[in-house]
Amino acid sequence: MKKQKLVINGMRLKESLEKFADFGRTENNGVTRLSLTEEDRLARDYFCLCCKELGMNVTIDDLGNIYAVLEGKEKRPPIVMGSHLDSVKKGGRFDGVLGVAAGLEVVRTLVENGIEPRIPIMIVNFTNEEGARFEPSMMSSGILSGKFDKTTMFNKIDSDGIKFGDALQSIGYSGNIESRLDEAEAFLELHIEQGPILETESLSIGVVECVLGMVCYEIEVTGESDHAGTTPMEMRKDAFFTTNNIIMKARQALSALDQDLVYTIGRVNVFPNIHTVIPNKVVFSIESRHKDPEVIKQVEEIIHGFSSSSVKEGCEIKTTKLWNRDTVWFNENICDLIQQSTESLGYSYKRMVSGAGHDAQFMASYLPTAMVFVPSINGKSHVESECTEWEDCEKGVNVILETVLTILSN
Amino acid sequence: MKKQKLVINGMRLKESLEKFADFGRTENNGVTRLSLTEEDRLARDYFCLCCKELGMNVTIDDLGNIYAVLEGKEKRPPIVMGSHLDSVKKGGRFDGVLGVAAGLEVVRTLVENGIEPRIPIMIVNFTNEEGARFEPSMMSSGILSGKFDKTTMFNKIDSDGIKFGDALQSIGYSGNIESRLDEAEAFLELHIEQGPILETESLSIGVVECVLGMVCYEIEVTGESDHAGTTPMEMRKDAFFTTNNIIMKARQALSALDQDLVYTIGRVNVFPNIHTVIPNKVVFSIESRHKDPEVIKQVEEIIHGFSSSSVKEGCEIKTTKLWNRDTVWFNENICDLIQQSTESLGYSYKRMVSGAGHDAQFMASYLPTAMVFVPSINGKSHVESECTEWEDCEKGVNVILETVLTILSN
Repeated sequence: MKKQKLVINGMRLKESLEKFADFGRTENNGVTRLSLTEEDRLARDYFCLCCKELGMNVTIDDLGNIYAVLEGKEKRPPIVMGSHLDSVKKGGRFDGVLGVAAGLEVVRTLVENGIEPRIPIMIVNFTNEEGARFEPSMMSSGILSGKFDKTTMFNKIDSDGIKFGDALQSIGYSGNIESRLDEAEAFLELHIEQGPILETESLSIGVVECVLGMVCYEIEVTGESDHAGTTPMEMRKDAFFTTNNIIMKARQALSALDQDLVYTIGRVNVFPNIHTVIPNKVVFSIESRHKDPEVIKQVEEIIHGFSSSSVKEGCEIKTTKLWNRDTVWFNENICDLIQQSTESLGYSYKRMVSGAGHDAQFMASYLPTAMVFVPSINGKSHVESECTEWEDCEKGVNVILETVLTILSN
Repeated sequence: MKKQKLVINGMRLKESLEKFADFGRTENNGVTRLSLTEEDRLARDYFCLCCKELGMNVTIDDLGNIYAVLEGKEKRPPIVMGSHLDSVKKGGRFDGVLGVAAGLEVVRTLVENGIEPRIPIMIVNFTNEEGARFEPSMMSSGILSGKFDKTTMFNKIDSDGIKFGDALQSIGYSGNIESRLDEAEAFLELHIEQGPILETESLSIGVVECVLGMVCYEIEVTGESDHAGTTPMEMRKDAFFTTNNIIMKARQALSALDQDLVYTIGRVNVFPNIHTVIPNKVVFSIESRHKDPEVIKQVEEIIHGFSSSSVKEGCEIKTTKLWNRDTVWFNENICDLIQQSTESLGYSYKRMVSGAGHDAQFMASYLPTAMVFVPSINGKSHVESECTEWEDCEKGVNVILETVLTILSN
């Protein structure tokens, strides 16, 4: 007779997620829990309490990252699960917190089943993943992995001029540098997809192979402001019409590159932005993501071509690269383990990429890391209506549990 | 022997314009003299003083319009010259004030030459032409002509919440409704062109036949905000890309209508305007001007076609007409008189249209009205660098003087 698989308690997971959502719940059933605010402190306190009740040892590092450890029989680097408890303004009840609640539910399941793990099991909560109060996002995993400079980050200020470092002190979550996570057997981050693919394809689980590389440019188009009523069309240097021209050309060229390429012009500012004045300046962002660096290179060539475009109509075009990041590939072994776990549970799945950034992409630089996605209803995230079916949340946590059990049994 | 023509004193005109520019002169030699501010009060005081020194009778109406009258031998409706002393923020030294200084210089020339006019000569300064502090523009000529409601206008507030009516009281220029201008033999407004046509064609004088009709719409494109990294291109409803599509189509259609048509998309706001978020809304203005109402009608048909466009890419398009105005034709006799005066002075000229709005367009509804344009260097206005050659200013005022003399001699 086939042995019954150990699974988590879906009802308890739901209650846990709803409990976390109480810390900053909005009137439209979303969550505003900006990093290092009172809401964040309360969520952290609750998380620490839950972990201690499970007999876990809780430490805080100098970045405010919380590590809860269930001791293992062997003194070895832990299996780590986790994500972040902070949210954007008017965000949802799943982004980030699902990965932390997953860790809690896995440990609860182990503990209530009397499983003493071979090696330690850790749950981590990373400080300020969203970057919604203090830019940049993924701040503390960025410091942990050496991507960001701690002093620079601690001096980052919010819109009220409060420094990150001071905010961390004020909520009482400033710990010791010695507590930082430096080794792990594996790091597993469960997260909502934040996109429409799993839902569209009616799949439950995404085995995430990489976080897409991306590039972001700012384009400044400079024309001349003249009176909308008195300047004949052929004498104009209209920065907005020129912008219109180059965007049309760019879309044609970018669409021809690769069907998986995404590109977005999300920020557009027109000056002086008066209906009776011909725009003399347009500044817009263009960002594009793809897993293949060769494709990103072609995107950059297209963007650099803007300034020598034939459709400038007398305007000047300046392109500035704001930043880029290379595609981060997750650990193949961990990905395979996740896939096997998913298959063993009989869940539908696909191997996929993450278009969004996550703490896991920084942790992957020094820990064997991979991510699990569950479907986002309508692909929405960072909005109050962000939602994932409870059943899908449960499946995602079961995949994490099964993967942990598999690692423990090796 | 041909009689020597009476001409104005160009040096004195220049001094007069520079004196007015002292009231609100900016560090870049422009002018900030918003309506009903201290700078406006000082310019008004100076104007009244100059008129009184010339023996003129100065009255103020309930809208703060100033009327200075040089008595004529006959008690008849006056020949009126004038424009406005207010400016936009960081505007120039010529827009508006030139028409008032022209009146002053014409009367000075008459007085110093001992010419007692047959009928009264009046100079008018209209309150709040620019609408830069209190919207709308051409406020008091609009009330005079019955276009705007006085109570509504007096309750208009500036950015500090101050009411127009209170500001008028506070600078001491609130007069009597009985003083309002109700009859005139002619109203002549000299103004800078605010466009590039006269300069481009190397002409000194524009005989203005009409103020262009125009129409202004607001277009709202609604799509869906999704994550820029996680949403495949074919699943997007990108409000900005759809905006680009319809603008491209609109430009093609509008360009084919008539070569004199002008159209401008001056105000564009993209929401949420974050580089990593697909825009879910774009709101933009589109305004267009042409003298022929049939052409404007075709423009409106094109704009109404946006919402049934084939290039919406899943977005919704809402078009709202913000306002329109019909082409205002000036008095043909006055236009002809101005043209004859210009020819008799030997100045180069063309009959042309005004793409910008002016007090004259409202006054034309009940007074025989026409305008004279002088060239704007580089077509610029409403900027500190706004400029007109002193020689061209002088020629413009000579055309006004000659026209006044012609009317007086009839």
